[in-house]
Amino acid sequence: MSLLVVGSVALDTIETPFGRVKDTLGGSATFFSAAASLLSPVQLVGVVGQDFPLGDLRFLEDRGVDFAGLEKRDGESFRWSGIYNFDLNSRETLETRLGVFADFEPLIPEAFRDARWIFLGNIDPELQYDVLEQVDSPELVVCDTMNYWIAGKRDALLRLMPRVDVLLVNDSEARELSGEYNLLKAARWIQDHGPRMVIVKKGEHGAILFTNGSIFFAPGFPLEEVFDPTGAGDAFAGGFLGYIARAGSASLDHLRRAVVYGSALGSFAVERFGVERLVDLTVAEIDARVMHFRELTTFEEPAAVRQGS
Amino acid sequence: MSLLVVGSVALDTIETPFGRVKDTLGGSATFFSAAASLLSPVQLVGVVGQDFPLGDLRFLEDRGVDFAGLEKRDGESFRWSGIYNFDLNSRETLETRLGVFADFEPLIPEAFRDARWIFLGNIDPELQYDVLEQVDSPELVVCDTMNYWIAGKRDALLRLMPRVDVLLVNDSEARELSGEYNLLKAARWIQDHGPRMVIVKKGEHGAILFTNGSIFFAPGFPLEEVFDPTGAGDAFAGGFLGYIARAGSASLDHLRRAVVYGSALGSFAVERFGVERLVDLTVAEIDARVMHFRELTTFEEPAAVRQGS
Repeated sequence: MSLLVVGSVALDTIETPFGRVKDTLGGSATFFSAAASLLSPVQLVGVVGQDFPLGDLRFLEDRGVDFAGLEKRDGESFRWSGIYNFDLNSRETLETRLGVFADFEPLIPEAFRDARWIFLGNIDPELQYDVLEQVDSPELVVCDTMNYWIAGKRDALLRLMPRVDVLLVNDSEARELSGEYNLLKAARWIQDHGPRMVIVKKGEHGAILFTNGSIFFAPGFPLEEVFDPTGAGDAFAGGFLGYIARAGSASLDHLRRAVVYGSALGSFAVERFGVERLVDLTVAEIDARVMHFRELTTFEEPAAVRQGS
Repeated sequence: MSLLVVGSVALDTIETPFGRVKDTLGGSATFFSAAASLLSPVQLVGVVGQDFPLGDLRFLEDRGVDFAGLEKRDGESFRWSGIYNFDLNSRETLETRLGVFADFEPLIPEAFRDARWIFLGNIDPELQYDVLEQVDSPELVVCDTMNYWIAGKRDALLRLMPRVDVLLVNDSEARELSGEYNLLKAARWIQDHGPRMVIVKKGEHGAILFTNGSIFFAPGFPLEEVFDPTGAGDAFAGGFLGYIARAGSASLDHLRRAVVYGSALGSFAVERFGVERLVDLTVAEIDARVMHFRELTTFEEPAAVRQGS
């Protein structure tokens, strides 16, 4: 039941209305692993520079994250720095220093190639394709992308899509990729171009899973304070695939629950800076929040419907 | 189990990317009644001018809407004209001609004063207050308002609020009224100022019911085409209170279902111009859509949680 993630391992400098942190643990593979490892062991493939504080990853090792695929290269680690506006709904990137990540060419260790579940973090779609060339026959491939690749590497992305089972995008990405404003039409366009399934993340407005013939909706978890939205999407992906790996099945029932686990992990991630909240989070807390999600949307069948009126 | 609505009865001229209609039936009390009357009889209080095509209201009379409170005055009927942008997410008001509505002073007929359920459509909060002075002891008062009154008649609105059970606002109104960006805090602010409950409508992103100590979330119904958003909020209110009146109870279970009926009616309303879709809508269609809402959000309890792990 191995779960493989390929993506960035970075150092983030983040400013929100609540404060500022410098060079804190970040990157798509890091957030994914911090969430997924609460539910399942994880195999990580990424790259860091000589300056990376490897000790910061120890809590993930202790939780069963296998870093055999983390390359250490001469040079600087990937650094991102950004500032969020007062309502945390938009952010400005202050600096992106790719460092060793600029030449990242994911090499999947022999021991990782039989991975059953794969998350392709947001990297160049050509590299995402190369990853799939190196693995045997995964049961579920979940792929993230972003506007930068949709605009700049559209052909590579379209070539990748038939090999992806679940495309994980936010609403603006779904719209840009498909050219459709309506999210139903956007999802159908994407499904017509390869992925059997699409998950559209709408931030505070929740997430929608489009499968063949069904739609599942999970609300955004109502939080009084969103502290730092960085990494929420990758934590969502980690919760989603971590749950699938734990369940050992990607049946429709499990996929629906997985979206809720994803939403739960995403909601925890934003409660503190960076991965902080995911460090000492417990499975019991996650399960409790999943049940809270159920309460949020559950209503009894009206009597009139039960009576068939 | 009488259900009373006070609000506008108007003629709308609407342009959307799909076409244009002139002087079609509109107004908050009209949309409310068109939705609610599918579930319960309705008593309407409003005003129209001599030019109003009363025959257009016949389908509502046939469905049990009592127009004894519809005043016919010398002068022109309330007319609104607006144009929606390509994605239907914003609109521009081209013209508002209040006509006889400018001097509207709701007079509640004797026979309506024992109303058990009341919807105060979006009118001057002073007039909404006057309505409540004229009725006996309603079990549930639901009140709509808008930014115009929040900014211009704040004191009157705050005076009204303790007499309201459910304030029905959209997200921007909740934020403007409370001065809180976070919707949880905004809802709590509102609840601290009178209403026991708040419903925040988020358009395509769904609706949230805040009660004392619980939150219920209904998603926006996934539609491939939104044809004309006019009146969706009032149709929501009609579905909400129509369901409550039909159930004869405003218990928490019923309130949650009522939010789904509101969401269902709102979603039907936008499928055609004006009230068109609500004219021949059936209870069976409504109930089917409510069940569809259940499918959208239902997931099984994960085994791990069931086992108490």
